[in-house]
Amino acid sequence: MSKLVIVGTVAFDAIETPFGKTDKILGGAATYIGLSAAQFNVDSAIVSVVGGDFPSEYITMLESKGIDVSGLEIVEEGKTFFWSGKYHNDMNSRDTLVTELNVLADFNPKVPSAYTDAEVVMLGNLHPLVQLSVIEQMDSPKLVILDTMNFWMDNTLEELMQVIAKVDVITINDEEARQLTGEYSLVVAAQKIMAMGPDYVVIKKGEHGALLFHQNDVFYAPALPLEEVFDPTGAGDTFAGGFAGFLAKSGDISFENMKQAVIFGSCLASFCVERFGTERMLELSKKEIHQRLQQFKSLTQFEIELT
Amino acid sequence: MSKLVIVGTVAFDAIETPFGKTDKILGGAATYIGLSAAQFNVDSAIVSVVGGDFPSEYITMLESKGIDVSGLEIVEEGKTFFWSGKYHNDMNSRDTLVTELNVLADFNPKVPSAYTDAEVVMLGNLHPLVQLSVIEQMDSPKLVILDTMNFWMDNTLEELMQVIAKVDVITINDEEARQLTGEYSLVVAAQKIMAMGPDYVVIKKGEHGALLFHQNDVFYAPALPLEEVFDPTGAGDTFAGGFAGFLAKSGDISFENMKQAVIFGSCLASFCVERFGTERMLELSKKEIHQRLQQFKSLTQFEIELT
Repeated sequence: MSKLVIVGTVAFDAIETPFGKTDKILGGAATYIGLSAAQFNVDSAIVSVVGGDFPSEYITMLESKGIDVSGLEIVEEGKTFFWSGKYHNDMNSRDTLVTELNVLADFNPKVPSAYTDAEVVMLGNLHPLVQLSVIEQMDSPKLVILDTMNFWMDNTLEELMQVIAKVDVITINDEEARQLTGEYSLVVAAQKIMAMGPDYVVIKKGEHGALLFHQNDVFYAPALPLEEVFDPTGAGDTFAGGFAGFLAKSGDISFENMKQAVIFGSCLASFCVERFGTERMLELSKKEIHQRLQQFKSLTQFEIELT
Repeated sequence: MSKLVIVGTVAFDAIETPFGKTDKILGGAATYIGLSAAQFNVDSAIVSVVGGDFPSEYITMLESKGIDVSGLEIVEEGKTFFWSGKYHNDMNSRDTLVTELNVLADFNPKVPSAYTDAEVVMLGNLHPLVQLSVIEQMDSPKLVILDTMNFWMDNTLEELMQVIAKVDVITINDEEARQLTGEYSLVVAAQKIMAMGPDYVVIKKGEHGALLFHQNDVFYAPALPLEEVFDPTGAGDTFAGGFAGFLAKSGDISFENMKQAVIFGSCLASFCVERFGTERMLELSKKEIHQRLQQFKSLTQFEIELT
């Protein structure tokens, strides 16, 4: 088993969906990634920052999931990053109502010395310079995975390109892949992104699943067709956490093994959206995961007799 | 092997895409369905109507593919149905520039007596009353497959509901499934459509593939990620033709076999979009189809080790 370093936000979210709304609840990319990767019992550490207002029971909960929090800085006099958003009826688009960076504005990530030798690094969505700083603190990771979003393409493209050049895998959604490359075809976009640095490109298409590209190979992981998406918040991070966690657990970064990793990512994300925030991820059993993996198999596996 | 009856338009299309434009070329739902089903060497017949302006070499070509055209009425004094459309840059939406019904306005379909005992009926997109008339002319088909579109939901919903109640399978796109049921979730929409009559629902999602629903089972056929979609015209009909043709060929209408049928449909549709109109379908070899089926396998097949 490999060690996994996770950098990303640990946050308060307030979410409104057609099904209801929440007060400030636990959120943040690193939180979702950590909880998802924790399903594989990997030795993981979160590198992030929170304010003095962050409840200690949340930290205790993360520790109880086997996540090292020595890299989770607490700025006592500061406030925790806060995001608030409202989803539209189709759940595929949302309005951001509030973004308060708070302690995140001056975040200077410190990878705990016990984790600078980690083999797998998952760079959750965050300022590219923070992501770059984490890469620089690592000894010689076997696999660096980058998640990012259009906000950084719009505002810090140069820094983002520096990070992209240094990572092995990028996970990005379809619209962002098109924005980054100016190509509508995701096949062509993936080829252009690989030319920027990463050996592997994962394009997330929400309810339409995810595509994994490597050289001239492509693999498709469907999203599970659901009766209801209750709250999409964190689905992409949960996908990334499942992907990174599975690879850290197995220590095998072949294309064949990455296929399994994207299936595990899709599987875990399909749970995440069933409840508000992290709720569903906190009560998830191995048995439920195994049953859902069977659903993924029957959803996509077929025998063809060539005639 | 079963006989296959295909009803639908045989038409002239004039198409404009970002890659170029065509004059009036061969088109129509029944044409695409017929050419696709012909890949399985089934005994099929097209029931349709054309005008005196329809070139005899098109008819000869259909016959050369083993398609019976005795049910293709030629109205010498009339003109063939004509559609013209222009695709937007994303290829996912289009404007209809011209629709001239011509001989289609008074079309009264006649199933040739040699084909009223066919086991499989593919009702291509057309007025629901025409589709209904074909159903009524059949002896006792084992499987009736319906393709339709939003135009008939907007204008002839009552008649469409009568057809839906009588068919075994419906193929419909995602937006149309939502329109027909008022449900955003495709899982819920499929359940509601099955309650209207069909035992099987195929929801086509274009570049995002297709979902096959039956009772509580669901199967997902991806679309092949393509570098370039040259002309999407006829892709849905080609999908339906592959689906119907495979089922007619195998004579097996189990859910397991329908999984193969949707994969064959997706496979054939992936060729259709590579050239204007029917061009690619006319020069398609068995070897190319087999190679592409292998691509569909490597795109979706995986082994999961449960940990």
